[in-house]
Amino acid sequence: MKERGVLTVISGFSGAGKGTLVKKLISEHDNYSLSISMTTRSPRAGERDGVDYFFIDRDAFERNISEGRMLEYAEYVGNYYGTPREYVEKQLSEGRDVILEIEYLGAFQVKKMLPEALLLFVTPPSADELLRRLRGRNTETEDKIRDRMKRAIEEADIVDKYEYILLNDDLDTCVRQTHEIIQNAKYSVSRNAAFIKEIKKELIETVG
Amino acid sequence: MKERGVLTVISGFSGAGKGTLVKKLISEHDNYSLSISMTTRSPRAGERDGVDYFFIDRDAFERNISEGRMLEYAEYVGNYYGTPREYVEKQLSEGRDVILEIEYLGAFQVKKMLPEALLLFVTPPSADELLRRLRGRNTETEDKIRDRMKRAIEEADIVDKYEYILLNDDLDTCVRQTHEIIQNAKYSVSRNAAFIKEIKKELIETVG
Repeated sequence: MKERGVLTVISGFSGAGKGTLVKKLISEHDNYSLSISMTTRSPRAGERDGVDYFFIDRDAFERNISEGRMLEYAEYVGNYYGTPREYVEKQLSEGRDVILEIEYLGAFQVKKMLPEALLLFVTPPSADELLRRLRGRNTETEDKIRDRMKRAIEEADIVDKYEYILLNDDLDTCVRQTHEIIQNAKYSVSRNAAFIKEIKKELIETVG
Repeated sequence: MKERGVLTVISGFSGAGKGTLVKKLISEHDNYSLSISMTTRSPRAGERDGVDYFFIDRDAFERNISEGRMLEYAEYVGNYYGTPREYVEKQLSEGRDVILEIEYLGAFQVKKMLPEALLLFVTPPSADELLRRLRGRNTETEDKIRDRMKRAIEEADIVDKYEYILLNDDLDTCVRQTHEIIQNAKYSVSRNAAFIKEIKKELIETVG
């Protein structure tokens, strides 16, 4: 049997660079799977079911919710979006490490459903740098940037519910640290209850 | 100001190879300091005060205990042995990562005094391997080995109070993992309360 993979939830300030971080992490290591979201919105041109999203209708999504088959979900502009448990569980049981890039409300839902989940929060080195990155995008109005900064203040209040802070200053360093933290989670005592039980049993048998 | 170092307590089954692990870890990286124990026993030939041990008399040791200046201590064959807090604190405040190789009763005393301490437990891959290593030493009677195995059963009961298990199968791998786990502890949310507070303050000032 393959050792169970680690489920990692990655959140972070908007502008912290978590999308780039996740993309680089996955491209550099072949042990990671990105979770696939489920949604009730219609597929856009080129989007494939089971690759970009799992597309299902509203009734089916609500049945999934009521049957506890969503790790997390939210409604946004009239459509449901969420993470189906089955896909994640299948990947984990095959020994793959699953990455879930979601916001904090979803992160806390996941942690409640699967307490083994590792919660990481990505932040730039300073608020100034966050602002600089948001402005550097050149795609957003000052009003929109202000909204994102306000949202960041809200997020700063709940960072302490995460387990690790990833300071995304140098991207390569951040990718390396993220990989190490996830891989070393496999050695946490809470994930090794079965091993501890087994070695104790063996010790007792050996002493006789 | 240098970032505060990490205090790591390393325990493990007798025969797990923790001494070798600690020695290699310290020789490969220059950020670690080994804690220096304090004792009431007399110095042996060649032992230097403040290097091998801090040698003090019984009254002074007991005064240290009553004044809360020992991170942990125990009495063994009529002499006190323990870890003075001051030396450890000085190293940590200079940004050095301190390694404390002690048994579990001491480890739990340290964790109570300094909850930030990281508790690692070293184990061989199996009970058979533990037995093989103990016999391989060729220095101990079967009775003594049996005692160590019994002690290991006792230790297996408290491993779950540690934070990480270090499987010492391949020494180089184990040294690397130990180093990574200790260094990444610096990114745990619980160690970054000040940074989170600061970035929140900055965000609020930026939004104005």
